[in-house]
Amino acid sequence: MAPQYAPSLRSRLAPLLLFLQIGFIFIYAFYIEIESHVKEDGITFSNFYAEFQDVNVMVILGFGFLCTFLVRYGFSGLGFNLLVAVMATQWAIILNGIESWYYRGMIKINLRSLVVAEMCSASALISIGAVLGKTNPVHLVLIALLEVSGFVLNEWLLQTLLKVQPLKSIMLLHIFGAFFGLTLTWILYRKGSEQQFEKEKFDRKTGLFSMLGTMFIWMFWPSFNSVLVDNHTPGRKLGAVFSTYLALAVSAVTAAAVSVLCSPKGKLNPIHMQSSILAGGVAVGVSMSVVHQPWEAMTIGFTAALVSTIGFRYLKIHMLLAFKCHDTCAVLSTHGLAGLLGWLAHLLLQIKDCDDHTTAIRFAVFHICTLFITISLSLSMGIITGLLLKWNFWRPPQDKKCFDDQAFWEFPQLAVHK
Amino acid sequence: MAPQYAPSLRSRLAPLLLFLQIGFIFIYAFYIEIESHVKEDGITFSNFYAEFQDVNVMVILGFGFLCTFLVRYGFSGLGFNLLVAVMATQWAIILNGIESWYYRGMIKINLRSLVVAEMCSASALISIGAVLGKTNPVHLVLIALLEVSGFVLNEWLLQTLLKVQPLKSIMLLHIFGAFFGLTLTWILYRKGSEQQFEKEKFDRKTGLFSMLGTMFIWMFWPSFNSVLVDNHTPGRKLGAVFSTYLALAVSAVTAAAVSVLCSPKGKLNPIHMQSSILAGGVAVGVSMSVVHQPWEAMTIGFTAALVSTIGFRYLKIHMLLAFKCHDTCAVLSTHGLAGLLGWLAHLLLQIKDCDDHTTAIRFAVFHICTLFITISLSLSMGIITGLLLKWNFWRPPQDKKCFDDQAFWEFPQLAVHK
Amino acid sequence: MAPQYAPSLRSRLAPLLLFLQIGFIFIYAFYIEIESHVKEDGITFSNFYAEFQDVNVMVILGFGFLCTFLVRYGFSGLGFNLLVAVMATQWAIILNGIESWYYRGMIKINLRSLVVAEMCSASALISIGAVLGKTNPVHLVLIALLEVSGFVLNEWLLQTLLKVQPLKSIMLLHIFGAFFGLTLTWILYRKGSEQQFEKEKFDRKTGLFSMLGTMFIWMFWPSFNSVLVDNHTPGRKLGAVFSTYLALAVSAVTAAAVSVLCSPKGKLNPIHMQSSILAGGVAVGVSMSVVHQPWEAMTIGFTAALVSTIGFRYLKIHMLLAFKCHDTCAVLSTHGLAGLLGWLAHLLLQIKDCDDHTTAIRFAVFHICTLFITISLSLSMGIITGLLLKWNFWRPPQDKKCFDDQAFWEFPQLAVHK
Repeated sequence: MAPQYAPSLRSRLAPLLLFLQIGFIFIYAFYIEIESHVKEDGITFSNFYAEFQDVNVMVILGFGFLCTFLVRYGFSGLGFNLLVAVMATQWAIILNGIESWYYRGMIKINLRSLVVAEMCSASALISIGAVLGKTNPVHLVLIALLEVSGFVLNEWLLQTLLKVQPLKSIMLLHIFGAFFGLTLTWILYRKGSEQQFEKEKFDRKTGLFSMLGTMFIWMFWPSFNSVLVDNHTPGRKLGAVFSTYLALAVSAVTAAAVSVLCSPKGKLNPIHMQSSILAGGVAVGVSMSVVHQPWEAMTIGFTAALVSTIGFRYLKIHMLLAFKCHDTCAVLSTHGLAGLLGWLAHLLLQIKDCDDHTTAIRFAVFHICTLFITISLSLSMGIITGLLLKWNFWRPPQDKKCFDDQAFWEFPQLAVHK
Repeated sequence: MAPQYAPSLRSRLAPLLLFLQIGFIFIYAFYIEIESHVKEDGITFSNFYAEFQDVNVMVILGFGFLCTFLVRYGFSGLGFNLLVAVMATQWAIILNGIESWYYRGMIKINLRSLVVAEMCSASALISIGAVLGKTNPVHLVLIALLEVSGFVLNEWLLQTLLKVQPLKSIMLLHIFGAFFGLTLTWILYRKGSEQQFEKEKFDRKTGLFSMLGTMFIWMFWPSFNSVLVDNHTPGRKLGAVFSTYLALAVSAVTAAAVSVLCSPKGKLNPIHMQSSILAGGVAVGVSMSVVHQPWEAMTIGFTAALVSTIGFRYLKIHMLLAFKCHDTCAVLSTHGLAGLLGWLAHLLLQIKDCDDHTTAIRFAVFHICTLFITISLSLSMGIITGLLLKWNFWRPPQDKKCFDDQAFWEFPQLAVHK
Repeated sequence: MAPQYAPSLRSRLAPLLLFLQIGFIFIYAFYIEIESHVKEDGITFSNFYAEFQDVNVMVILGFGFLCTFLVRYGFSGLGFNLLVAVMATQWAIILNGIESWYYRGMIKINLRSLVVAEMCSASALISIGAVLGKTNPVHLVLIALLEVSGFVLNEWLLQTLLKVQPLKSIMLLHIFGAFFGLTLTWILYRKGSEQQFEKEKFDRKTGLFSMLGTMFIWMFWPSFNSVLVDNHTPGRKLGAVFSTYLALAVSAVTAAAVSVLCSPKGKLNPIHMQSSILAGGVAVGVSMSVVHQPWEAMTIGFTAALVSTIGFRYLKIHMLLAFKCHDTCAVLSTHGLAGLLGWLAHLLLQIKDCDDHTTAIRFAVFHICTLFITISLSLSMGIITGLLLKWNFWRPPQDKKCFDDQAFWEFPQLAVHK
């Protein structure tokens, strides 16, 4: 008979966290220093800090509360998100500085490094959305570290092999994260979960908490997309802000319309309103550098919300039944499909701008390679991570304890009835 | 017998939203472009963006969560607020640019246009507060578009006929929105609603969500009032921030004191603490340009909270019973009365500053005309909109389905108990 | 027999608030004016305002929602926090300007004054954390005014007697607030409360609200610590941001690890994750001026979380049983111990930097005096305040009405069953 209690993580989680954290402190002590002088490119501290905070709010609070929709899994969603985000950010700062360490022996960090690291960490949080509730925090920390490593490797490959601009390669975080997460959840598939998990439910109040997270992500997405756009040509940064804002606005309207259309009773689905209103931000983020007109951004937002809402309605259940791939937060439709759409929009817009055929074809090949490398690496890293996590040493929760805070949290002073 | 289910909106909401959204995309494609060069008046991108985000947070998150206080209407309050806000903002950008389109054939938009558009949209959201719960999303979208049209028309009239400064005419948004909403709810009055609606209730948790919205509005109001104040004389912007902050602080204290005084048991009323603590921000916003001393702002905040709390206590029920005007979010006392008070404070302070009688009288006439035009237009637009919405074609929810998410949202995975 | 209802505050709270508020308005009318010209030290309005708002969010929303964890005390936690914060801020602006008033007859205020005043108010809010739920709003307002007076006096003594830098003396707010609050709760101890109060409980939803507050404090702490660091040497501000961010990140990981280690079942304690993840920010805030390397900040964060988590686990119950000191929000472990640790870290790091023994010893003596004065003043003010509050004139709630909103709030439209 299976044990009644979830396995204790005392001998797994605590040593792992302490070991990693002390290790990070040592690495930081020897190799990392703060770059104190002002950057020459006009980005001074004060006009960058507010945007950094917007990104920080999205990563810590936005993603965190987004994961509180499960009725019994709110503390885990929020708490593990924080834990994973700070581990991944510390690790990403180190990884992003390896090249500089190789040449100069030291890693110099500034506010920009921190923003880039938080974006790598956002990529890991997207992956985690796919396996949320079916894993324990030990798994999540390992996933985050491996995903970030894979993502930084991908960035480096793209920049070295294909001379992709840094910003473009970072914005692939949605595609990388989504496919990594999907592979992972496919490998970690639990038999019998075609039926819904017993506790995979939400109620009105947790739904509102989750909406809170969504709102913060929705509102600050213009900062997320524009923060790394350089300030040399002021119009570009404003353009990124406007494109993202308009795409998100159109996404919200379209998601509502399509959700009502798809429903036989003509009702809105709260999950559509939570995930698909964000699709425009993903798609514009990926294609940002070639979006010059407001209507282009709006059309991308429209299509992204359409694809994402329909994907959620018909694809999610298909993925589960046909491919045995249980995707808790629907990262496929929110980040995966919208990211691919953004990639496609980038291709089409760039080709439209090209004067002759040769350049267009050359760009298309280059652009397809970029996607190919990203997805291959994402799938391979997902498989490796998944196989590592299948090891019972990490003490996965039983099926009955999935989606349940009680497995990982103690509530000594809990009020009995409401 | 009345049907048991709320009427389906599939054939109304979805086509309306898609039609409007695709229409907006076409208009944007042909007539709107982003103004990329830096403004000459010293407002650069980076020191404006943080304040834009504060306003954005107020409009999307603040107003949204403010409307979640109804126990069964949280998703509608929050979701429809987002929907309406983005529709109204897109529409306001177009309307505000009509003049420029007329002369130059194109509408150039920048961050300032977006802020102005969000303020017009805030005006529509205030109106919606009065009819919340008794309408369906189709109604709300129509209300928003018509209200924004009326408000922009009012702005144009005031600026053309009376040479009112743009900022002053925008700040009348509270008065315009409140009276528009009140007229609307008076026309849409449902027989038998002298008794409370069955589901017009709140509980502790939804009250806290609503407090969250209030807090964000309270905290970021200094940004809302100061964002459009020009930066030529730095003191003015700081003055607007300080006036708003102090007025809000005094409002919070006064609302608590008056609430306790009005209650026979000496207890605080949570709704007072939610609506009346904001009254100072409204009143100072309207009178801002003549408030120069901290104590003036504080006195305005004090009076506004006093009027608003007493108005809420005694006027709301009177409005319902005597005038058959059911005002869900108490926009009369929060925005209407406080706005009028701000208008009066403006008059008095300006007259005090005048050197001679002639100027004072001239200003008074001019100031009274401003209010007269605003209220007339607001009432007329409210009547037109109300009559349009009375049409059964829009499928209003039955009385029993008012204040109920179930009428518009489907909850497939809702946890049964808990 | 004890009365069934909590005593009415109508004749206490309302007159007190109105008297104080009108008094403040008079003082502001005669002695306070806004400093309009731009500061010479490069801090202009726009690049300071965003950071001010971060601090404002921490004080109003962060501390407010942090106090909503009690299942029946959410409205009080949030509402009284707002009330107290605005009273304390208005009072602190006056007190901080007394010197300027003495010499020039007027108090000139700018955005910096407001930030400093909000920090003084944060100090009062920390104290209030220790007595939360066992006091009524009249008590809380008195505590806030006396605490702020004591804190400003302490600042003035340190700056006058020991020539401590203003920023350093402000950052002692955690130590001052925590010990003031502990003394207070020790004096106000209620017999029989070794057993838990009947209503001192939390549930999942209020826990999430409370996490929301924690998250905002966690995210914006870098702004809190860096906002007053001057901009002359840009690296210093960035250094303060980085130190705080890294210390908080390490704190979050360490708190989770230690919480799991301390628990026999290997589970996380949600209260640890709420309070101890903030310990790093406290400790770094106190020692900030001598922390130059990332690893120093990280080590401080690590130790602070360790001390704070262990302190919470074993000291809180000990304080209650042995010292009869009931500390609702665990301010001892979060602010007290972490603050002392920061003080110690400051001492050690400064001594390490000293070249010769004489300077080191001189600094140590000076540093110990600073702490000694702060704690003495904090304890004395706590005793005075406690004795004043013991007076039954203020109508304290009965034991049964502790931790209950019903004692202070009326809920006319409350939904009966959820």
